[in-house]
Amino acid sequence: MSETTMLRRVLVLLSGGMDSTTALVDCVHDPAVAEIMALFVDYGQRHIIEFLSATSIAARYGVQLTRLDLTAFGSQVNSVLTGAGEVPHGHYTAATMAQTVVPNRNATMLMAAAGIAASHGLTEVVTAVHAGDHAIYPDCRPEFMDAVSKAAQLGCGVGVRAPFVHSSKADIARTGARLSVPFELTWSCYEGKLGGHCGRCGTCVERAEAFFEAGVDDPTVYRDPDFWRQATA
Amino acid sequence: MSETTMLRRVLVLLSGGMDSTTALVDCVHDPAVAEIMALFVDYGQRHIIEFLSATSIAARYGVQLTRLDLTAFGSQVNSVLTGAGEVPHGHYTAATMAQTVVPNRNATMLMAAAGIAASHGLTEVVTAVHAGDHAIYPDCRPEFMDAVSKAAQLGCGVGVRAPFVHSSKADIARTGARLSVPFELTWSCYEGKLGGHCGRCGTCVERAEAFFEAGVDDPTVYRDPDFWRQATA
Repeated sequence: MSETTMLRRVLVLLSGGMDSTTALVDCVHDPAVAEIMALFVDYGQRHIIEFLSATSIAARYGVQLTRLDLTAFGSQVNSVLTGAGEVPHGHYTAATMAQTVVPNRNATMLMAAAGIAASHGLTEVVTAVHAGDHAIYPDCRPEFMDAVSKAAQLGCGVGVRAPFVHSSKADIARTGARLSVPFELTWSCYEGKLGGHCGRCGTCVERAEAFFEAGVDDPTVYRDPDFWRQATA
Repeated sequence: MSETTMLRRVLVLLSGGMDSTTALVDCVHDPAVAEIMALFVDYGQRHIIEFLSATSIAARYGVQLTRLDLTAFGSQVNSVLTGAGEVPHGHYTAATMAQTVVPNRNATMLMAAAGIAASHGLTEVVTAVHAGDHAIYPDCRPEFMDAVSKAAQLGCGVGVRAPFVHSSKADIARTGARLSVPFELTWSCYEGKLGGHCGRCGTCVERAEAFFEAGVDDPTVYRDPDFWRQATA
């Protein structure tokens, strides 16, 4: 196999959060990556801030960003994230996290992304799912990632890579810090209001914890900056 | 396991064609099937006749039909079926059939369908892919169906069943005739014009051939009823 054919041509699923941004920047710095596209999937999120974050991050690195509208899929399935209820506050528990599950969301995104990657001549989809997602999101687990990668490879010749599937969010914060990821451009808060992260929802608590555990400065503006300490205590 | 939990609760992917209609009617007659929903996926087809066919078929059997809009996915990938070029005429060859490939289309539909099935408490997605699709559509092959079923099972607890994956289209015509499938309500033609099937496109030729090989009366109105014999000769 020649050196050219071994180069990776990747489509990175970019949500605008710290995990997928770190995955993107990791590809930017990887000499084995010859081509990068980013894909933002809208499955009916309740705010546009995530897309604005993804746009500014892609622009920072000169990466082409494409948006895929899967809102019709989002509207067919049950989840508070797509408007069916209130976003739960506080640290994730099994019960509150379960409310944020969109059944087979990652699976559907990954298959659509693989098809788009194939039509652009790319060889691989990169997704930033991590170990913290496993407990509640079945389509973020290592055995699922293996199965979906096999299906996508058979379906359209594109593999699926999940570089952080065995990493914690704190590991990702450390990796991101090493790569000088512009965390200040990233967005996690499920409430998605201008004026900063709420600091109280499950993703805000996870985010603050991850920076703390990693010993990495957290540049995030939280409207309630200390809530996560009580939630975690 | 009790009898109740062994009953199948199925979501049938219904395109309005003869294959998926036969799969639906097969479920209608199966005493092991306790619940049926039908899902029509619009991935950017160029005509609405397929949806009208699916609607009338679902109504005939009293099955709830849901429509999922994946046109945004269709528009991101390359295929003549979604408007990128002319539909090839005549019998499918590898080259002309390849033009009708939407990369990972089945894969994406199946994963979205599995998520929708899960959110309705159903246990299984049924798809009518058949052996005639294998040569060119990689995401219709038995090994792909196994992989995607495993991924969907892991992702949201819903299996994928492809009852005709080892059958020819003629086998399906025979099965449909035995089940009194209303073939006259089904639609295959890629050109999708009122006034009947064109009789010249790849699916029309396949359809006419299948009825002929099965020895089943073909109720289809073809604008060019004899073209398929020359195409096949």
